[in-house]
Amino acid sequence: MKADIDRLMKEHKLDAMLVVGNAQHNPAMVYFTGGGHINDAILLKKRGQEPVLYFYPMEREEAARTGLKTISFSKYLYTDFMKEAGGNLAEAMVLRLKKMLTDQGLTSGRVGIYGEREVGSFYSLISRLQQLMPKLFFEGYIKDEILLSAMMTKEPAEIERIRQMGKVTTDVVGKTAEFLTSQKTKKGMLVHKDGTPITIGEVKRKINLWLAEHGVENPEGTIFAIGRDAGIPHSTGTASDPLRLGQTIVYDIFPCESGGGYFYDFTRTWCLGYAPEPVLKVYEDVKKVYDTVYAELKVNEPFMNYQKRTCELFEGMGHPTILNSPTIENGYCHSLGHGIGLQVHEKPWASMINPSPTDILAPNSVFTLEPGLYYPEDGLGVRIEDSLVANPDGTFEILADYPKDLVLPLK
Amino acid sequence: MKADIDRLMKEHKLDAMLVVGNAQHNPAMVYFTGGGHINDAILLKKRGQEPVLYFYPMEREEAARTGLKTISFSKYLYTDFMKEAGGNLAEAMVLRLKKMLTDQGLTSGRVGIYGEREVGSFYSLISRLQQLMPKLFFEGYIKDEILLSAMMTKEPAEIERIRQMGKVTTDVVGKTAEFLTSQKTKKGMLVHKDGTPITIGEVKRKINLWLAEHGVENPEGTIFAIGRDAGIPHSTGTASDPLRLGQTIVYDIFPCESGGGYFYDFTRTWCLGYAPEPVLKVYEDVKKVYDTVYAELKVNEPFMNYQKRTCELFEGMGHPTILNSPTIENGYCHSLGHGIGLQVHEKPWASMINPSPTDILAPNSVFTLEPGLYYPEDGLGVRIEDSLVANPDGTFEILADYPKDLVLPLK
Repeated sequence: MKADIDRLMKEHKLDAMLVVGNAQHNPAMVYFTGGGHINDAILLKKRGQEPVLYFYPMEREEAARTGLKTISFSKYLYTDFMKEAGGNLAEAMVLRLKKMLTDQGLTSGRVGIYGEREVGSFYSLISRLQQLMPKLFFEGYIKDEILLSAMMTKEPAEIERIRQMGKVTTDVVGKTAEFLTSQKTKKGMLVHKDGTPITIGEVKRKINLWLAEHGVENPEGTIFAIGRDAGIPHSTGTASDPLRLGQTIVYDIFPCESGGGYFYDFTRTWCLGYAPEPVLKVYEDVKKVYDTVYAELKVNEPFMNYQKRTCELFEGMGHPTILNSPTIENGYCHSLGHGIGLQVHEKPWASMINPSPTDILAPNSVFTLEPGLYYPEDGLGVRIEDSLVANPDGTFEILADYPKDLVLPLK
Repeated sequence: MKADIDRLMKEHKLDAMLVVGNAQHNPAMVYFTGGGHINDAILLKKRGQEPVLYFYPMEREEAARTGLKTISFSKYLYTDFMKEAGGNLAEAMVLRLKKMLTDQGLTSGRVGIYGEREVGSFYSLISRLQQLMPKLFFEGYIKDEILLSAMMTKEPAEIERIRQMGKVTTDVVGKTAEFLTSQKTKKGMLVHKDGTPITIGEVKRKINLWLAEHGVENPEGTIFAIGRDAGIPHSTGTASDPLRLGQTIVYDIFPCESGGGYFYDFTRTWCLGYAPEPVLKVYEDVKKVYDTVYAELKVNEPFMNYQKRTCELFEGMGHPTILNSPTIENGYCHSLGHGIGLQVHEKPWASMINPSPTDILAPNSVFTLEPGLYYPEDGLGVRIEDSLVANPDGTFEILADYPKDLVLPLK
């Protein structure tokens, strides 16, 4: 939670955070600003102090709405630094940032860098600034244990927003099921009234429309993949594919609040009309592992323990997994889940590779549980996913209930 | 155009490009890959050679669809580098990238870095890699004259895609006008049948719905601002504001193709029912400047010449501008336009600050023309914007026609 940031900064000997980029679709910046149409902003947070947001004057009203302490870039015009920079704009940008840091009393210590933006110019900017400010040490984290650790545990209002996105998500999933089961069939495919096949692309357009009706965004797209595509975990599906009965459809949907706010993440696997025996068997194995692992979840346990457990359960059923075959591309070949919040993937991580002691199912963490099995050569894949919260009382709760049935009977 | 990249790399003594990040909503990566659900990819392009895309095996089908030469990250597992890295994941990531570059024969020369992603981890990765590969020089451009110069001029297929986004945009703008002019009024405001005011927020939700019906995205939101908000160029509008007759509405809409493809950018200023005399005067000044500058456009001219010309025209009419008052926040206080493509703002730039000789209206460049005047204290702002293409025959063309009328008469 935000209240943990100063403590985590102290533990990791960080004196300040420098957050860069737009205030939308930029998790670190959204976390502090709450979003808004603020382009190419800079936020500085010194340990033990409130953050300061630098903004361009055209966006002063949006900046004011954040409720943060703000400073206009009009106090730091590039033009004022161009002479000292010998007419070099890149150098003027470096000198400007140096002045901003100096004015905040930041001339020595460790500064963590955060935010999403174009990396090339930023790399050059900070590399040069590092030369000019040798007593400051700029550090970016490949495994961030400060901001991402704070973001990992959610305040009640954040959980409520994710729960609300869960309601939106399952409403759209319900509309999708209703649409699919209400269509005519011909030659084993869903068809329009004129007999032409309904395609994956058409269903995806409807999904986006239903999401837009709720006023949410879908920046990373939706996985709606059938048959062999369903057997490749991150194939998003082929737009021109028809919807054949009796084939697995993996439907993985992960929309976010407008402007790049909180996400939800959810997957169901469906067979239209009926499920062939081999598909049913694979589905039942996934469902059994889901239920077993869910029942075994304990607050504060390392998430990777359940990844290991999932592998062992699947291997016990005769499925290959990445536990014993790290480069495998069928069977169980991904991670059991991940945290979810302002990013669709964040801490805690379930991966067993280089685990961090902080990747635990902490109270108030929100994360996905998503075991799956993939056999692309057999034309099938199955994944079941919900987003869960770890309650402080030690219980776990699925944030948005939805039936897990494999077969969607046609009307 | 893509065909210019090798020449530009040679001119700027660049031996390779390293592009990082997702394949969606990431202009540099989309430019090479065409998009797709490919997360945290790496693309390497050596001068004079085809690019190579590295992908995670789960996304192999999406990677294959790019038509690029591809290599799976399964050939470069972190785990293979963990021993050499002393168990440090960050170091293993550095060693992995070093091996990938080395395998491509990149051990000396200059590498330009591109792409949007989390900057902190990337800064640390490249800083450390720079230490390990002292004969390679990694450079990011604050003013990129290579990739952005190539992207500045469009192929016919790219122009067609922007034109198509223009059709979508003006269709949605037309639907918005139709909606606004069909409502009832009460006490000088648009109202629902029950007499409650229609708000900015409701109109914005409708805009998003109409955009979704076209299957496009709106990742940066829409400016729909009335009255004083309209007088602040980048205020996006206040959701709870009612729609009062006779006040200026600045409607700036800039959607993109699904997945973060090509953008369009378009602004109209409207007064519902009638326009008060002072508003009409400001509108006519903006329209006159738009028409004058449009008529004077010449292919291959520096874009900033028209920014200067716009300032002079406005000052001749008695309006303050940034030409003589750089920090001004009313009058004409922004740039005349910008290139548009996979980014809503890109080369050519119209700014007079530190101009580049390549910021010209080159044949096949696509850019906006958007003069405006802002008087927030008088509760008004006016901007007119179209996206134009510079044709090789020396003519200029607005990519999507739409009436420029200020007043929307109510039905």
